[in-house]
Formats: sequence, structure tokens, C-alpha cells
Amino acid sequence: MELEPVRDLPEVRPGDDVAALVAERAGDALAAGDVLTVASTIVSKAEGRTADLEEYPVSGRAREIADRIGAVTNEEKDPRFAQAVLEESTEVLIECPFLLTETRFGHICVNAGIDRSNVPDHDLLLLPKRPTESAERIRNGLAERGIDDVAVIVTDTCGRPFRHGQRGVALGWAGTPASRDWRGELDRDGRKLGVTVQSVVDELAAAANLVAGEGAGGTPAVVVRDWTFGDLEGSDELFRSVEDDLVRQALREWEWRADE
Amino acid sequence: MELEPVRDLPEVRPGDDVAALVAERAGDALAAGDVLTVASTIVSKAEGRTADLEEYPVSGRAREIADRIGAVTNEEKDPRFAQAVLEESTEVLIECPFLLTETRFGHICVNAGIDRSNVPDHDLLLLPKRPTESAERIRNGLAERGIDDVAVIVTDTCGRPFRHGQRGVALGWAGTPASRDWRGELDRDGRKLGVTVQSVVDELAAAANLVAGEGAGGTPAVVVRDWTFGDLEGSDELFRSVEDDLVRQALREWEWRADE
Repeated sequence: MELEPVRDLPEVRPGDDVAALVAERAGDALAAGDVLTVASTIVSKAEGRTADLEEYPVSGRAREIADRIGAVTNEEKDPRFAQAVLEESTEVLIECPFLLTETRFGHICVNAGIDRSNVPDHDLLLLPKRPTESAERIRNGLAERGIDDVAVIVTDTCGRPFRHGQRGVALGWAGTPASRDWRGELDRDGRKLGVTVQSVVDELAAAANLVAGEGAGGTPAVVVRDWTFGDLEGSDELFRSVEDDLVRQALREWEWRADE
Repeated sequence: MELEPVRDLPEVRPGDDVAALVAERAGDALAAGDVLTVASTIVSKAEGRTADLEEYPVSGRAREIADRIGAVTNEEKDPRFAQAVLEESTEVLIECPFLLTETRFGHICVNAGIDRSNVPDHDLLLLPKRPTESAERIRNGLAERGIDDVAVIVTDTCGRPFRHGQRGVALGWAGTPASRDWRGELDRDGRKLGVTVQSVVDELAAAANLVAGEGAGGTPAVVVRDWTFGDLEGSDELFRSVEDDLVRQALREWEWRADE
């Protein structure tokens, strides 16, 4: 397996065609069966998913959350930001000391993934509204330019419980299942494997994040070559349902207290 | 970045020297600055971390847990297995409908990572006792064979909250920090980055898991080439402390009920 960053992508503007920008720079590097990872930041910029705080009239709930977080962190929190997070979310899992929510498309992350630093002329950069549709558009855009059968993964980085640090994750994908299923496969001695479902889109996003880098030297797109899904069952379930997620059930019943 | 599986590793036996086994097969492929990932299964086998259920006299707590899980899953659970999990753990986070614990070395996973299927002549394969010491031994073993300055990561796969499927994670590492810190770096427009700490050992483990595969065609060791940590601050904190982990705090106060 080989990973290569797509070099020299320009600053992306609303209305830009991400597939075209990548094809111009990495068209020769991409072949059928390859995977292209694209950071959600440039997808959001191309889709015009910027916003300003003044667009968010503050609800009582947003003010309450901003006040609670502000009191705990000793920093004044803008309730319009809390309002923006609530509007991007379908459920609040933790509201204090930080906002952990489920986005409309099922991803659980801090502040609904809203970026306050990554956009030049606006206050906020929201996550793509439907990242899997974004991935499909980019995949189709590549095919229109003669680059057929490239899987596309829209990626982000986020933290997680139990382990420090952020790692790359998939938000949306096209041209590949989200996971592959090793159940029923046999080991060397002919015994059934204990392992089950492997989240390949998350592992591809994590691998790409190693070469994407950050900051001025970073690149938002990475080509993955010489990797194959293999002849295994696939599934597109990536985000757990509440019934299947004990941590989420626990968070529903729990409230953080400042004395802990 | 390039990843290549180490081919034709034999079935590993207690007392085997993992560094020697890898050096014989991939010595020419490994150079200074490369990363070698090694699945914890072969590290455990080499270290003789096998066990049999009869070695675990059942405590009251283990019987209680096995009974609870058995009642919920309608399958009889061996209380000796619960005892083995408890003996490998320092804290139980969830005890029913499955055992989620913190291992002695700080990793949180189901059943303390004990494998019931992967060992020919015993009932159980335990995780390495000190995976970072295991990684150091393998790194030193490579250096003794003239393969200097290779980072070594002992890996496993495990599930996670919020997202389906398993992904590769690091249990121990040597010759590389666990994470790199982008705080203070600037973006293209000279603004400070919002991102913080990137868990590179977990991302390397995830990437390696994509090419390692499972079962008869799988390989437990992978060489990563052409990847550099870069000129950034590093840290070896991988496992969160309770104070820093709201999910863990929530789980401490929560108990699963069968009606949920």
C-alpha cells in the first residue's frame, strides 16, 4: 500500500469543483481501484458551508449551555456558537464542560465539528451537510474526467474516549463499503476467526492523516494505491445506533459536575 | 508513505525471538527511520502469555459477573474466563452485558483483550504484560542485528464507542513518541492551527491493519517506509487519565439495565 499527498492544491473557494482541482494535479497518479481521501475542510469550503455568528439568534438552550461552559472554563463563551452547534446537531451527548453532539449525518464529535479558525472571510466553517453525497459527487466528477472507479473518502480528525490525541476518521465515502467482515474466515489452523468487522474507511482516513500533515505544509487530499478491499462482505454501517452503543446510553443518563 | 507486510512468518512459539524472525525475512526491507508494526498476538505467543481456564479459581465477583452476563445473553458464561479478565485488569468500566476493563498497562478494551481462539494448545492468549517493554525489546533485537533506529509498535485491534467496527490501535511503542503536537504551528494564512495532538502510533497501527489482513492469508508484521514524524514536539501519553476522560467518569456512575 502506498500513500501520496496531492500537492499544490489552491485555497478552495465556494463553488470550486474539488474533483477538477484534484484531477488537474493528481489525474496521472489515480487509477481504477485507488482511494482518494479529501479533508472535509476543502469539501465544506467548496460547498459554501461557511457561516457567521450573527446568523445565529440565540435560543434559551444555547444561552444556558454557553453560561454553564463559561462558568466552568472561566472564559466567556459566545452563545451564538452554542446555537450554531445545536442547529447542526440532532442530539446533545455532553453539554458541559464541552459540547459533544451527534451531527445530522450521524457523526459524534465535539462542537458538531464546527471550525472557528479555518476560514478567511467568515466566522465558522461547518462540516459538509451530507458527506457521503459529497464523496459521491467527487467520485462522479473524477469519472467524468476519465478517472473511473476511484473510491472517495471525506475525512476529518477527532478525539475519542480512553485515548489521547486525535486521529483521522471517515465522515462520508463512495465507491467502497465502510467496513469489511472477516467473520467466518479461517485462520492458519482452520479455526474460525474471532475478529469481526474492520472499519476500513476509518483506517484509510487515519493512514491518510499521517501523510496529510497540518498547517502551511499540509495537504487536504491523499491518494492511496495498491490497497484492495478483497473478496469479503462489506457494510456501510459506520455510525452506531443508540441501542448498540453502551457509552452513548451511559452519557444520556449522566451529567458532568464541576467537582469531579 | 509505503506499507509492506512481512511475509512468511512462521507460527510463533514461546521463547521465539520476534526481532530475529522479522530480521530474517524483512531485514533488507528495513532501514533507519522505518516503522515496524507487530501484532500483539505473536508478541504474546513469543512471551508465553498463554493460559488455561483451570488456572483461574473463581472469585465471588467473577461468578457474579458471569451469571449476570449469562442471564442477559442466554449463553452460559465460564466464570473462570471472567476471573482471568479481572486478574488482567485494574478497573472494570462495564461488567454487563460485556466486560470492558482497563488493563494493567492502561489500555481499555473488551475482556482485557484476552483471545480465546488464537492459541493452539491452551485456552487463552493474554495481551503482552508490558507492551512498551516488548516493543523496546524488539527494537533492541533489530539493532543487535545491525538494523538500527527502527521504531516498533505493538498493535491490536479493538472496537470503540460511537462507531461500528474495529480498527488497529497501538498498545506499546519504542523509538517514536506516541503522538505529535501541532499546537502553535501556523496555517497558510499565518493563523494558529486549531488542531492539537495527533496520535501517530494509533494511526500507524490503523494503517498497518489495512495491509496485515486476517486469517490464513494475514500477516502479523508490517513495515512502514517513507514516513517521518517531522520536527514537532512529541508525547508518550496515549491512555487518558480518568480526570481527562468524561466518558470514563460517566461509565463509573452508570449501570447497564436489561430493559434499555
